[in-house]
Amino acid sequence: MLRTHTCGELRLTDAGKRVILAGWVDRIRDLGGVTFIMLRDRYGQTQIVVPQGLSIPIRREAVIKVEGIVKERPKENVNKELETGEIEVFAEKIEVLSSPTKELPFYPNEEPLPAEEVRLKYRYIDLRRKEMMEKLLLRHAVTLSVRNYLSKHGFVEVETPFLTKSTPEGARDFLVPCRLKPGTFYALPQSPQLFKQILMVSGLDRYFQIVRCFRDEDLRADRQPEFTQIDIEMSFVTREDVLEVVEGMLKHVFKEVLKVDLPEKFDRLSYDECMNFYGSDKPDRRIGMKFVDLTNIFLKSELQFLQTILSSNGVVKGFVVNGFAHNMSRKLADQLEEIAKTKGLGGILWFSFEGNKVARGSLLKHLENEYNLVVKELNMKEQDVCIMCAGQLSLVNEALGEVRKTIGDLYFSHLKKGFDIFWVLDFPMFEWNEEEKRFVAQHHPFTMPNLEDLEKYADKDLSKIRAQSYDIVINGFEVGSGSIRIHDAELQKKVFQLMRLSEDEIKLKFGFLLEAFQYGTPPHGGIALGLDRLVAIMCGASSIRDVIAFPKTSSGTCLLTGAPDVVSEKQLKELKIKIVGGD
Amino acid sequence: MLRTHTCGELRLTDAGKRVILAGWVDRIRDLGGVTFIMLRDRYGQTQIVVPQGLSIPIRREAVIKVEGIVKERPKENVNKELETGEIEVFAEKIEVLSSPTKELPFYPNEEPLPAEEVRLKYRYIDLRRKEMMEKLLLRHAVTLSVRNYLSKHGFVEVETPFLTKSTPEGARDFLVPCRLKPGTFYALPQSPQLFKQILMVSGLDRYFQIVRCFRDEDLRADRQPEFTQIDIEMSFVTREDVLEVVEGMLKHVFKEVLKVDLPEKFDRLSYDECMNFYGSDKPDRRIGMKFVDLTNIFLKSELQFLQTILSSNGVVKGFVVNGFAHNMSRKLADQLEEIAKTKGLGGILWFSFEGNKVARGSLLKHLENEYNLVVKELNMKEQDVCIMCAGQLSLVNEALGEVRKTIGDLYFSHLKKGFDIFWVLDFPMFEWNEEEKRFVAQHHPFTMPNLEDLEKYADKDLSKIRAQSYDIVINGFEVGSGSIRIHDAELQKKVFQLMRLSEDEIKLKFGFLLEAFQYGTPPHGGIALGLDRLVAIMCGASSIRDVIAFPKTSSGTCLLTGAPDVVSEKQLKELKIKIVGGD
Repeated sequence: MLRTHTCGELRLTDAGKRVILAGWVDRIRDLGGVTFIMLRDRYGQTQIVVPQGLSIPIRREAVIKVEGIVKERPKENVNKELETGEIEVFAEKIEVLSSPTKELPFYPNEEPLPAEEVRLKYRYIDLRRKEMMEKLLLRHAVTLSVRNYLSKHGFVEVETPFLTKSTPEGARDFLVPCRLKPGTFYALPQSPQLFKQILMVSGLDRYFQIVRCFRDEDLRADRQPEFTQIDIEMSFVTREDVLEVVEGMLKHVFKEVLKVDLPEKFDRLSYDECMNFYGSDKPDRRIGMKFVDLTNIFLKSELQFLQTILSSNGVVKGFVVNGFAHNMSRKLADQLEEIAKTKGLGGILWFSFEGNKVARGSLLKHLENEYNLVVKELNMKEQDVCIMCAGQLSLVNEALGEVRKTIGDLYFSHLKKGFDIFWVLDFPMFEWNEEEKRFVAQHHPFTMPNLEDLEKYADKDLSKIRAQSYDIVINGFEVGSGSIRIHDAELQKKVFQLMRLSEDEIKLKFGFLLEAFQYGTPPHGGIALGLDRLVAIMCGASSIRDVIAFPKTSSGTCLLTGAPDVVSEKQLKELKIKIVGGD
Repeated sequence: MLRTHTCGELRLTDAGKRVILAGWVDRIRDLGGVTFIMLRDRYGQTQIVVPQGLSIPIRREAVIKVEGIVKERPKENVNKELETGEIEVFAEKIEVLSSPTKELPFYPNEEPLPAEEVRLKYRYIDLRRKEMMEKLLLRHAVTLSVRNYLSKHGFVEVETPFLTKSTPEGARDFLVPCRLKPGTFYALPQSPQLFKQILMVSGLDRYFQIVRCFRDEDLRADRQPEFTQIDIEMSFVTREDVLEVVEGMLKHVFKEVLKVDLPEKFDRLSYDECMNFYGSDKPDRRIGMKFVDLTNIFLKSELQFLQTILSSNGVVKGFVVNGFAHNMSRKLADQLEEIAKTKGLGGILWFSFEGNKVARGSLLKHLENEYNLVVKELNMKEQDVCIMCAGQLSLVNEALGEVRKTIGDLYFSHLKKGFDIFWVLDFPMFEWNEEEKRFVAQHHPFTMPNLEDLEKYADKDLSKIRAQSYDIVINGFEVGSGSIRIHDAELQKKVFQLMRLSEDEIKLKFGFLLEAFQYGTPPHGGIALGLDRLVAIMCGASSIRDVIAFPKTSSGTCLLTGAPDVVSEKQLKELKIKIVGGD
């Protein structure tokens, strides 16, 4: 090695040693002819003292090699913020290994940070920041921890193909033209779903893979065209077994990497409970504000619109925001009202409890009685605010969910500490796709439906059929999603038919899976967790871009390399494809 | 779980226990009304005894669940080949979880195997074979062992992008049309080379990744369009440091996974030595047959063609094949002669030593004297054969190398046991590309040349410049290849110029790397090892297809899924590309 020690390694006990360090020049100070260089590498920083005679021109961010003697710092100069802060190295020889030939677009140790586009273009400078480097290290620690935990529990990591077949049920595929068979294409996998099920048919029993997946979607704010998932599949299991493995794995990883204890058992909410309590299938429960059904209180209200709603099976639900009265301006009330209207309701009902009485609020004149009952029912305290909606249950849930989330994001970020982790179970199997005018799988079409539901509702109302599926939610993000799978070719065909896929489509897209199912298939199930999101949550990053070494912008561009880019005519000719212009 | 134990778990100490097993029906035998089922899963096999009353129709390869009591087998029925062979399970309840609906195309426990195409199409049945499953398990053990070793030594696994920029220096890229920017393309990476160097510029210090790579080449027998490599890069290192890490890693992995001790230090041969001794840069040394220079012996030969060769700086070299006389037929001699001719030589010289004298051979009348001297010089024994070539050194080396390999493959497979592992160093930096009429990088253009050579030969003869590169060879396969990299933008530009890349090309393809090099770059180097080949060698597989779960045929087809395939007009329209027919 060109060094004897790293920049984070030397301690007082090393005083007197001759050492060689190498790293980046983080800062330079001149003090009466003596130069102090703070030398930086991934492991830390060490102060280098350069005596007058040795001084050579050195730029910040140059890479240098320093040979010298470790000395104890004078007591008054000890830097308690550095692990190497008790020593400094007196340089006897300095070699510049690589000097910047121009000013850097920004410096890793300087605030404020430039715009994200600049950070992405010069990603190698951005990654020099301690904060960013630590995120990469954490990500590595997480994947290693996952791999060791799963391996210890009998799971085998198997690599599945990236050049595979297009199966357009789901998102849009990225396609790869095949030169050897012009006119045909590989597709990059949206997930290894079919392959992991095939591996169960082959008796692998316990599979996992930390694997890149690809979706050609119109990119939303925090989406990437390529992302990484922890993919798991197990044979001879019930839902309980899958949940247990994932709980064990996450508890292990959080403990090993963050020294954080997750709950012994994770909470479980059904999809219906989740919607009823929080109006979302991935609520962040750390901000509280659980919904309560208040229909009974409003049954006798004189207001016509309430009577209409309640007489047609409608509900009134609401939640309390503690100590929120001073925030509940007219303007905010209007904003929340707008949210409820966007969700198809008339608006919100709200009131504050100030000076030990119902103070301000909507329709106060007409609803004061009811509001007083609500205060009692919900045990409201001074300065609390209650926000309610009236209407059909599902709309009320959705509207209140959105209102709750808005308030949480705007005013209660300080409550978002620690980890709120739980399961959501019993999702609906199907959801209506308005564009295609048919039911599609809510999770994916290989999910095992609740068989009793299937029997009862297959001919009547597909929306009532629950799936044997589960999501893991952390801090308001769906971090993982899985299900027990169908392992019977006939049942799988039936589900495809309920989704109105034609025989031809089924055969074309999933023929090989159905064929495989005919040769002895174990009951199986699994899950996939989003690694980017999991790591982002673990290190408190606001965007998954911060935990991906080389992310793309929301238009799918890599600002570092300039991908995607035009290619040569020769390349297109070889692939026998042509670009067709215009819109 | 749907089982209490796996099929490989029960022992005599479990006798008396009530258990539930689940697995595949490997074999069924009926003996006087009692049915014996051999139940199989990934972990082993257990014999199930089904009493007469319980018998239900069960097909081979059905998946069943059995509840019953563990009993000691009668002494005479103990099966010593099974780990569970001392017990059997007396079934009290049997449930068929999934029965084959038709005859399987082949059975995993039946010889002979069908053709490889059938095995690939029904890969899930092929993988049920113990031999295949064990290869997947070994591969997992290897990757886990590599990851833990490298992590323990400070290496950080970082995921680099798969949707990246086309850099056509090297093999052909797979392209991915970008829908959001019609007319542009991502490329799948041939290796993460540029990204790992960028990570060094960012100060990551020690990087690794087990990563899929892609090359759109005309597939040779044992190549795959996607393959996996163990990718490593380190900062502040010399060649010695990289070799040390790789030796440590491979020793650890072979020991942990195979219980095999590799040599404490791996042999090192220069490229020139390798060619001079074995006529190959990746020889299998286990078959011996090292070349010896015999020029001196032939200097005074009366034969005109030898005089011509030797007077123009030619050489005579040869090697001994021990005990080979009875194999050295006229036919084989002709075959070897043909090989030498293909390599541009006149043929081979050979003779056998039988009955304690030079017996049969080419030009025996004219060369008997010389052959007798060779016998002495090479200390030949009864039945040995000596094979020689005469000509210019590099051609002689190549021809003998090919002859040696042919003999080794045909007659000395039995010597190919254990592991022959060594380094090849000091490769030439450039090689002439006849098609493009220019020198190209032998390893890749980021390789650090030997700086003394560069100074001496840059203006004269590029072929004389050695590179700071290295290959690791195991059992005749180049398993890994790496180099110390250029870390200076100016030197990198100079190398590009020697390869006659224009300013524009350089900027277009590598601009971002050259830019990065301007902001403080550490000296760095690394290596990439082919995981598929490494695992194949470790488990003695003849093809890398056997250690890839879902490999492609040599025409790039996945027989299981049918990829690549045609796609819909809608998909092509969205990508704004069109297929252009004909050749």
